[in-house]
Amino acid sequence: MADHSVVSVANGPWKQTREEVSVLRWEEPPEGPVLILLDQTRLPTEEVELVCTDVPALLEAIRTLAVRGAPLLGIAGAYGVALAAVRGYDVDEAAELLARARPTAVNLGYGVRRAAAAYRRALAEGMAPERAAAAALAEARGLHAEDAEASAAMARRGLELLGELVPGGGYQLLTHCNTGALVSGGEGTALAVVLAAHRAGQLRRLWVDETRPLLQGARLTAYEAARTGMAYTLLADNAAGSLFSAGEVDAVLIGADRIAADGSVANKVGSYPLAVLARYHRVPFIVVAPTTTIDPGTPDGASIEVEQRAGHEVTEWAARPVAPLGTQAYNPAFDITPADLITAIVTENGVVSPVTADALAALGAPGAPGHDQVMG
Amino acid sequence: MADHSVVSVANGPWKQTREEVSVLRWEEPPEGPVLILLDQTRLPTEEVELVCTDVPALLEAIRTLAVRGAPLLGIAGAYGVALAAVRGYDVDEAAELLARARPTAVNLGYGVRRAAAAYRRALAEGMAPERAAAAALAEARGLHAEDAEASAAMARRGLELLGELVPGGGYQLLTHCNTGALVSGGEGTALAVVLAAHRAGQLRRLWVDETRPLLQGARLTAYEAARTGMAYTLLADNAAGSLFSAGEVDAVLIGADRIAADGSVANKVGSYPLAVLARYHRVPFIVVAPTTTIDPGTPDGASIEVEQRAGHEVTEWAARPVAPLGTQAYNPAFDITPADLITAIVTENGVVSPVTADALAALGAPGAPGHDQVMG
Repeated sequence: MADHSVVSVANGPWKQTREEVSVLRWEEPPEGPVLILLDQTRLPTEEVELVCTDVPALLEAIRTLAVRGAPLLGIAGAYGVALAAVRGYDVDEAAELLARARPTAVNLGYGVRRAAAAYRRALAEGMAPERAAAAALAEARGLHAEDAEASAAMARRGLELLGELVPGGGYQLLTHCNTGALVSGGEGTALAVVLAAHRAGQLRRLWVDETRPLLQGARLTAYEAARTGMAYTLLADNAAGSLFSAGEVDAVLIGADRIAADGSVANKVGSYPLAVLARYHRVPFIVVAPTTTIDPGTPDGASIEVEQRAGHEVTEWAARPVAPLGTQAYNPAFDITPADLITAIVTENGVVSPVTADALAALGAPGAPGHDQVMG
Repeated sequence: MADHSVVSVANGPWKQTREEVSVLRWEEPPEGPVLILLDQTRLPTEEVELVCTDVPALLEAIRTLAVRGAPLLGIAGAYGVALAAVRGYDVDEAAELLARARPTAVNLGYGVRRAAAAYRRALAEGMAPERAAAAALAEARGLHAEDAEASAAMARRGLELLGELVPGGGYQLLTHCNTGALVSGGEGTALAVVLAAHRAGQLRRLWVDETRPLLQGARLTAYEAARTGMAYTLLADNAAGSLFSAGEVDAVLIGADRIAADGSVANKVGSYPLAVLARYHRVPFIVVAPTTTIDPGTPDGASIEVEQRAGHEVTEWAARPVAPLGTQAYNPAFDITPADLITAIVTENGVVSPVTADALAALGAPGAPGHDQVMG
């Protein structure tokens, strides 16, 4: 797997028009199959695609956050295994590298395991490697489609929940990081709910946290909000407190990267302070995530490994220092919100409120005991 | 006053060596008196001075935050009046423009009024304009010196308070924005307390909020912490919640731009979310400010005018967009923390804890009834 490449093809054959931009897709040009990703680090100013011909290219895209967001990482991981299988690389090694590329989002490992299990199962049934590879690809496509369906179900259930929690409609909703079509096979998680409210004529305003240090809110959520015609306003994360004080937030909606068995939620750093503010101001705090994000194998929040990212994301801007040379930074990518601060968790299978271990377990998360085991 | 200029003299006659950098000083070269400011927008990468020959130049420096921080704004305002007087401009007009340059920091108007009152009093006593101008300058110098003394007193009182509130020493302190020597005639407000703890061997770590959108924490507080040899770590403001959760914050120390009569504190946006987090985690939340920051004329937090700054501070970085074109931003410069979330307010005259209107009034703020009236 030494021969790998990430190709930017802004003006090449894979460039799509603005209306056709897709976040992730599998293509099979004459040169061989490829996984094509919208480079999310270049948004909103440039819509550039990355063509991954092998797993190292995909690993780089995952680590640099060119592809990101819990559900999409799961889909990308599954396609990555399929890519390794179809191109004849070592599938076990590819699966191991992909599953480890980022530690917090449980979906990544889930998608990787599903595709790898399909591949191994096919081999065990006596199929040729080519047919086993096709089985892995079919599994990735299946996960992709399931995620789109889950997204639609979450949007529907989330909108119903908003109707119950916030009487009167005309919602002012606050969100953090990016949880829309850019993280999903469908329209996303929390932002899919916001979009459903918008389409129902019930969104008064979306408050978009910029989401330091990598500005997924400014770059990605604002981009999606603008494209879908929502009324939105961007703010420095710090300014959310003033909105709560002014009574301008009816509910907070966020996604999740991992939900522990006790209902603790790991999500983009900055989520926990919003949960504390929401509690203080008696505003609903709603987590929207597919059941693939629930990890029954992680008992509680303290057991969730939080990815610590490089300090230069905080100390530099566009490769120029914003702090004195040698400044040390604390840069966790995620934080943990305990269940008791969460009003509800919305999944495709149902809404859990209040958030308890029993209620979560009853949803039938993919990794839960009694659920079909997808891991070989 | 049409003829004005802001001159950057990085390598010119006013450039000082690293050891000699001063934040603000009055000089009288042969060309006439000038107010020289360290351009705080260029830190930490460049130490550049602005030479203000007249009030419009100073106004521009105030509006662009080249000079900033409540106490320093008061000092700058007083020198600005003196500059107008000495150079023969219209002192009343200069005072009016300066007092209005930024609405939230009460110290600015206070400094302006003190120098202007000294000037008018001298004229009323029959002095020549030149001698009245000298009286205004003397008043500015007096305020400058008083602020340095106040800073030392706050540092001493704040350190004592920390000893009472956080037994055992070895403090891990969290601060927001910049409140050190860069905002003061002395060593500052909240950061002066941190520096006192550092000198006493009691500072284990200073957590520095980067302070979006203008990064005063990353650029200025980290710069001061590095220069004074403190152990410090920078973080995205969002990450403070994780530090509280992990028990890594012993106390929060911030400054103030205006303290209403009821003890509500206006300070850099992001202060209020920290106060809510501190309350939730039962961590002391301490405001350090000179009595010149107390405004008996503002009854409560709701009466404080909060400056709304341009959206491009959030939507752009170094003049390049980070959000889609046309994105609207909510960009308040300050937020309001109510008295009941504040453990203590440390002033040069004493510590108020719990924070009540009566206790604040008893400190003898400059604008309080019964105190010497400085306004003509």
